[in-house]
Amino acid sequence: MAAAAGLRALGAKGSGWLRRGPWPLLTAGFCSGGPAGIGRPEPGSRPTSTRQRDGIRSIVLSDPKRRNALSLAMLRSLQNDILHEAESQDLKVIIISAEGPVFSSGHDLKELTDEHGPDYHAEVFRTCSEVMMLIQNHPVPVIAMVNGLASAAGCQLVASCDIAVASDKSSFAAPGVNIGLFCSTPGVALGRALPRKVALEMLFTGEPISAQEALLHGLLSRVVPEERLEEETLRIARKVASLSRPVLSLGKAAFYRQLAQDLRTAYHLTSQTMVDNLGLPDGQEGVKAFLQKRKPVWSH
Amino acid sequence: MAAAAGLRALGAKGSGWLRRGPWPLLTAGFCSGGPAGIGRPEPGSRPTSTRQRDGIRSIVLSDPKRRNALSLAMLRSLQNDILHEAESQDLKVIIISAEGPVFSSGHDLKELTDEHGPDYHAEVFRTCSEVMMLIQNHPVPVIAMVNGLASAAGCQLVASCDIAVASDKSSFAAPGVNIGLFCSTPGVALGRALPRKVALEMLFTGEPISAQEALLHGLLSRVVPEERLEEETLRIARKVASLSRPVLSLGKAAFYRQLAQDLRTAYHLTSQTMVDNLGLPDGQEGVKAFLQKRKPVWSH
Amino acid sequence: MAAAAGLRALGAKGSGWLRRGPWPLLTAGFCSGGPAGIGRPEPGSRPTSTRQRDGIRSIVLSDPKRRNALSLAMLRSLQNDILHEAESQDLKVIIISAEGPVFSSGHDLKELTDEHGPDYHAEVFRTCSEVMMLIQNHPVPVIAMVNGLASAAGCQLVASCDIAVASDKSSFAAPGVNIGLFCSTPGVALGRALPRKVALEMLFTGEPISAQEALLHGLLSRVVPEERLEEETLRIARKVASLSRPVLSLGKAAFYRQLAQDLRTAYHLTSQTMVDNLGLPDGQEGVKAFLQKRKPVWSH
Repeated sequence: MAAAAGLRALGAKGSGWLRRGPWPLLTAGFCSGGPAGIGRPEPGSRPTSTRQRDGIRSIVLSDPKRRNALSLAMLRSLQNDILHEAESQDLKVIIISAEGPVFSSGHDLKELTDEHGPDYHAEVFRTCSEVMMLIQNHPVPVIAMVNGLASAAGCQLVASCDIAVASDKSSFAAPGVNIGLFCSTPGVALGRALPRKVALEMLFTGEPISAQEALLHGLLSRVVPEERLEEETLRIARKVASLSRPVLSLGKAAFYRQLAQDLRTAYHLTSQTMVDNLGLPDGQEGVKAFLQKRKPVWSH
Repeated sequence: MAAAAGLRALGAKGSGWLRRGPWPLLTAGFCSGGPAGIGRPEPGSRPTSTRQRDGIRSIVLSDPKRRNALSLAMLRSLQNDILHEAESQDLKVIIISAEGPVFSSGHDLKELTDEHGPDYHAEVFRTCSEVMMLIQNHPVPVIAMVNGLASAAGCQLVASCDIAVASDKSSFAAPGVNIGLFCSTPGVALGRALPRKVALEMLFTGEPISAQEALLHGLLSRVVPEERLEEETLRIARKVASLSRPVLSLGKAAFYRQLAQDLRTAYHLTSQTMVDNLGLPDGQEGVKAFLQKRKPVWSH
Repeated sequence: MAAAAGLRALGAKGSGWLRRGPWPLLTAGFCSGGPAGIGRPEPGSRPTSTRQRDGIRSIVLSDPKRRNALSLAMLRSLQNDILHEAESQDLKVIIISAEGPVFSSGHDLKELTDEHGPDYHAEVFRTCSEVMMLIQNHPVPVIAMVNGLASAAGCQLVASCDIAVASDKSSFAAPGVNIGLFCSTPGVALGRALPRKVALEMLFTGEPISAQEALLHGLLSRVVPEERLEEETLRIARKVASLSRPVLSLGKAAFYRQLAQDLRTAYHLTSQTMVDNLGLPDGQEGVKAFLQKRKPVWSH
């Protein structure tokens, strides 16, 4: 199914999570086809690949020759794969990973020369920002699985996921200053994931931090040896996929929303979320199953 | 003295710290009596116990058989013990700890079945939120002393205290997703105490983190071996109790208030707080004692 | 050149970064002269010293006998040295360090006795707050280089810099409670640099934390052995000084501004910043140089 259908489904079920703020609703005009590979922009060159199994959608940045640069085509392909059937009950969790030794090197600099002009540049950054916000606004948890360097907008992508697991050989950088282009948009995600002194040293010097430093400072939730990266990430994903999707969706939306509120408003909102959660069939099933000492059976 | 009297005292001295936001003022209607044990809701079953000595009030969750579940009765008892003579100059600091191997398992699930209905559920979450905010709005510092598992609303309680000390065998979890009830209200406290990736991994997987991880990520201020837990917590509490109560009260209120403000407003507010602090008798006594190289004598 | 001239230059080039919020524009009325040492308030007693070379301005707190107390004279001298020719293209980065074993002990308590009265006290805290905000609003990165105790407003100064490097023998404290004066203004900077539990334990007990703890919790970006402190700090400063000044200025201002915004507004702002950055001569030079595999030549 193409993303356009996915968007229609969203519209029908309430796509409020895509419609806040100064930018217009995401349009599916760019659609290059869903994960099934229909409607590729250039035959044979789709920059991401996707497979889904047991509720776990794995999206892979698949342009290792160009260090998985987040070109406009890559961003749209990624956006497409994330949006595809977002409201389907078969989707429980998304993993974003990459082929090759570089997770992602960030924007494609060939798209940022003055030959393209400010309107084109604006489109690149707008699309990139939409992808980052889409991850946060998406109804299911999104996990970054990193094995290598995540740089500039590539680092922003890691910082924007809900959960981030990395191999111990990975590293993270915001090196835009080296080419005269301060990582201001990556700074939005880094400034919300890291202590500001750490974020600013990265942004001002362009130097990378190690996976261990990234864990220490909150950019990652977990670091493992390279050989255990996939196993550990899948373990987390399988756990998430075993849970009630509507319960996670409700909780994820409430979590991000309350973070920006004052304490009293945050408790008022989330207390209502708890009551709503208990009103869901899976809320009552879970509580009952626990009291009856049996495994819950989710209806989703 | 019962909590009702405590509230009257608060009213007289300015209970503005209890009156912000969309919820009405805490009522003392539920009063089950003060720490002295007067007016127990069910004879012999008060779920918290309290003693106060040398300015240090120790409140103990005392229902280990039910893993110190935060039932409505437990929450009200805790609220009562925190509010009791809150404005008394004899109270300098509060320690919240627990009997048994579980600090607290969170809400009492028997109270969350659909037999009770949404109004009852709302009352449970409203009361719980009030207790959490009360800790932050209270005039004296509140320390959590944790020795064991703090789970769901129990973890929220730790995250809501001003200072948190734990034994190295303690662990912390937000496992609501396992029973179909996302820890949305605990997420308010966790999202303000931990990096969001760590908070979200806890919330999405339900898996516990160790005391060392909790320290690394900011949920705790200190981790010690079990045999030193009480000694270390008391050392901190005695230090706090040796200081000027009105000075700490003024500073605590200003700290939380400025956190939510932009930088310039925050400095404007706290600069005034500093001037007000110097206008307190204990402010001038402290500065003078320092310049005269003697110990200050607080008048409180 | 005196700071007054620096301010005129700022006015000409747009000193919007000095003009936000409830306080009036910084006045240069106190001017005690620029880094060259002209116009000292008391001959021979200027409490800071400054030198600038290869774009790196080094400001040294130079009153070790009084533990580099942040007296009004010290604050104004520091403010002066930071403001001096702030818009000059010759200035790329500022390092703030100190002579002697104490980085800074905080306010000069002799200025806070009741002989001086509340208006004088207000002037002290207002000036101190202005210096802290000036660091954040300044067009170039400001690095704290700490070798020893940074206490109260001295700790606030470290927390207010963009980057902070310390020797492993350094320590950090907010001990105002010991003299009846809660560190409310330092709490503004500490509450934005540290997890709140760590900040509150420091503020409520007055006890110091080590350099390693400060790194763990985000107050520092880097800790090194004492003998490598200057080398490491200079390495960072030289890297910053080798980059394009207008690019760093644009990025620094956007970083702090977006931090206080909701996610969508933050991305909207910084996407525009990226486009503006690409419109700078150094933005296009950097991208071109990278694509042409040569070193960029900045025009600043």
